[in-house]
Amino acid sequence: MTDKILSHIDATLESRLDRLCDLIRIPSVSTDPAHKPDVARAAEWLAATLREMGAEASVRPTPGHPMVVGHLPGPADAPHVLFYGHYDVQPPDPLDLWETEPFEPVLRPVEGDTHIVARGASDDKGALMTFVEACRAYAEVAGGLPLRVSFLFEGEEESGSASLPGFLAGAAEELACDIVLVCDTDMWDRETPAVTTMLRGLVGQEITIRAADRDLHSGMFGNAAANALTVLTGLLASLRTQDGGVAVAGFYDDVRELAPETAAQWAALPFDEAGFLRDVGLSVPAGEADRSVLHQLWARPSCEIHGIWGGYTDPGFKTVIPCEAHAKLSFRLVAAQDPLTIRDAFQAHIRARLPEDCTVSFTDHGLAPAWAMAGENPFLAPTLAALADEWGRSTTCGTGGSIPIIGALKGALGVDALLVGFGRFDNRIHSPNEKFDLSSFHKGMRSWVRIIDRLGACRSS
Amino acid sequence: MTDKILSHIDATLESRLDRLCDLIRIPSVSTDPAHKPDVARAAEWLAATLREMGAEASVRPTPGHPMVVGHLPGPADAPHVLFYGHYDVQPPDPLDLWETEPFEPVLRPVEGDTHIVARGASDDKGALMTFVEACRAYAEVAGGLPLRVSFLFEGEEESGSASLPGFLAGAAEELACDIVLVCDTDMWDRETPAVTTMLRGLVGQEITIRAADRDLHSGMFGNAAANALTVLTGLLASLRTQDGGVAVAGFYDDVRELAPETAAQWAALPFDEAGFLRDVGLSVPAGEADRSVLHQLWARPSCEIHGIWGGYTDPGFKTVIPCEAHAKLSFRLVAAQDPLTIRDAFQAHIRARLPEDCTVSFTDHGLAPAWAMAGENPFLAPTLAALADEWGRSTTCGTGGSIPIIGALKGALGVDALLVGFGRFDNRIHSPNEKFDLSSFHKGMRSWVRIIDRLGACRSS
Repeated sequence: MTDKILSHIDATLESRLDRLCDLIRIPSVSTDPAHKPDVARAAEWLAATLREMGAEASVRPTPGHPMVVGHLPGPADAPHVLFYGHYDVQPPDPLDLWETEPFEPVLRPVEGDTHIVARGASDDKGALMTFVEACRAYAEVAGGLPLRVSFLFEGEEESGSASLPGFLAGAAEELACDIVLVCDTDMWDRETPAVTTMLRGLVGQEITIRAADRDLHSGMFGNAAANALTVLTGLLASLRTQDGGVAVAGFYDDVRELAPETAAQWAALPFDEAGFLRDVGLSVPAGEADRSVLHQLWARPSCEIHGIWGGYTDPGFKTVIPCEAHAKLSFRLVAAQDPLTIRDAFQAHIRARLPEDCTVSFTDHGLAPAWAMAGENPFLAPTLAALADEWGRSTTCGTGGSIPIIGALKGALGVDALLVGFGRFDNRIHSPNEKFDLSSFHKGMRSWVRIIDRLGACRSS
Repeated sequence: MTDKILSHIDATLESRLDRLCDLIRIPSVSTDPAHKPDVARAAEWLAATLREMGAEASVRPTPGHPMVVGHLPGPADAPHVLFYGHYDVQPPDPLDLWETEPFEPVLRPVEGDTHIVARGASDDKGALMTFVEACRAYAEVAGGLPLRVSFLFEGEEESGSASLPGFLAGAAEELACDIVLVCDTDMWDRETPAVTTMLRGLVGQEITIRAADRDLHSGMFGNAAANALTVLTGLLASLRTQDGGVAVAGFYDDVRELAPETAAQWAALPFDEAGFLRDVGLSVPAGEADRSVLHQLWARPSCEIHGIWGGYTDPGFKTVIPCEAHAKLSFRLVAAQDPLTIRDAFQAHIRARLPEDCTVSFTDHGLAPAWAMAGENPFLAPTLAALADEWGRSTTCGTGGSIPIIGALKGALGVDALLVGFGRFDNRIHSPNEKFDLSSFHKGMRSWVRIIDRLGACRSS
């Protein structure tokens, strides 16, 4: 039966790709209020797609963007999996660096593969559709699935998942399951699929500095009047240590050294530090000087500035002393770092260094703890085996990214998550010219069929 | 005769104000290429106005915005003065902070005066028109002027005066004169007109930092990849010392302590440090800790950041590691600081601290040395006397601003300049809701009539 389903996927790849492209064409940018109707349209599209597959599915309103919830029945003694994905995407800007329209997917043949180029092609529309289409193919051939599947699609992942905890609190009973499946991560390398067992957390912050009560002329006031941009740059620089670390007091208090076995596993992974950086035009790891790149990315917390603006930024020159300055930045967290504690330590660091004449205000943009999968989870081994069936190999790994839902789901539903991803490292997610490999989509669907088979065979003991 | 001219000005104030408003309505923003036709229109308006007054006048093209040159005849043995003004203005942004349209002058009655509210009302259209209208009134009543007057109006003062040195080199013979008159400075206080005898110089710089070859995702690369905004903020912060000074090596080498008599003069000026800062919502002088506010403003060099941009700055949040970051900043210079030396020291400071993986590029936005008037200039005393005739008092003072033309004129024509200004300190030049007091305009015209009289009486010895 498995072979028949896999052959069916091979034979119907084109129509499955068409459906993915339909979803990509909806510019569901959750962080931009102008795209609110598009986000709603993407939710409706997904609910209709699930219903087409025979699922019971609907769009559920939240205070922010809606959730899509669906259910497909299965044998009562088989595991009940909840698949999570997000249908919102990052803004496409800077637009002038795109070679094609961000929301009009283009198929670009490359040596040995084809790239699906578009915002969301990989993160997360392409990835979530590998699971949806695997279920569809399974049901088309076998008439039903060997396990119970629920779907939860979120529309705010790229903008902080503000509505998720409240929604989960109200839907915990409906979403009760044995394991959460998530497809929003990368493969280890082009040939090796991975189950990601560690995620970093996130504290997103926007900061505004105000100095004088108006913009001033630097000839009339230069030297004597506080300059909001000078203050902001000084404060942001004060967050960093000379050796690439973070200078906020207490920041590393709850960071733990890796378990020796994990460190050994990572050391055994074939990873070319120089090549990793060279691929994006760099050569020197920018984080803590005494840590390897993989440790910097997966096991060490970070502080990154995402945007700064203030003063005169148009062509030409204006000798203004700006009265306001703004920045967006975030901390990635690891291990037991508590998002609220880190946020408060950051804000205290800024307030303690703020010149007397300035005021500061902060806005939260998401707070999520780091996460690590329990090593003894019974679904891990069958998933790794199913992946190896399809690809000839598989591995576990960490990631430097954050998927805040994992912690929220664990808290609300009391179950762990299995993060299986088919993204490639060069997919340019969040950047111009994002792409998803057609082979990721194709073998991703095939992988999920095999995982569904293997997990369906796990009977409650 | 002088009284008749002054009375004529009093009786015709309204029509003189109308002409000023006509000039203000032309949005001659020199730094913004979109306003190039407006800048040209303002030049034509001025040339036509001079011709109306009986001057020989024309618009002269340059590689940038045009110059307006005009000549009014006078007695051969009387001094020949060259009046300099600029008809270009600063950009009006931030537009949302204007209470009225920036280029539609509004007359707002206030206690004891009327404000002319508009971009350029003070800097420099209102100021230059005090001289133009004084000459017009003089000629209307007396049939001619008691000295020879040439006019030079520039359209690039607010964007670096790039075309000026070349133009002066070609027009030095035509513009030969005994003294340059400039009206682009402030009064000492509301009741005391001033001749400004010291100006700061300016080095304007734009800096761009480039790191990776594309924007990156902070989950995938955060910690390990150089962040252009982090690098930029660190570099900008490194320009400042803890006590409010500038940390560039050699920056203070050519800064001299004030002559004791100048320091004594300044100490005698009634100046309320606390009130000066309180007026703009501040309380603590931000410059070198051991210097008074007047010294910080007039006699100490400064470093101000005018604008920063980079990364994601729209609503919401995007966890991007930006590959590019930009800033505009300037140094105000004093005494013998050489603009090229300071620029090169700044760029060397940045290059020495630039991380290996980053590149930097610089753009010049104006280079001008500081200037101080020779104390023995024979036109200073009659000008101070003429001002005292009109206002009951007058003084000399310094300023923190830069008027690059002064150095350029001195170099090209070999003469010094007399800086007479009727601006008030609260005119918000370069800021939203710029204004010019009607009394500045009215008594400014009257003052110039008296100065013309006094200077006309100076005969070549």
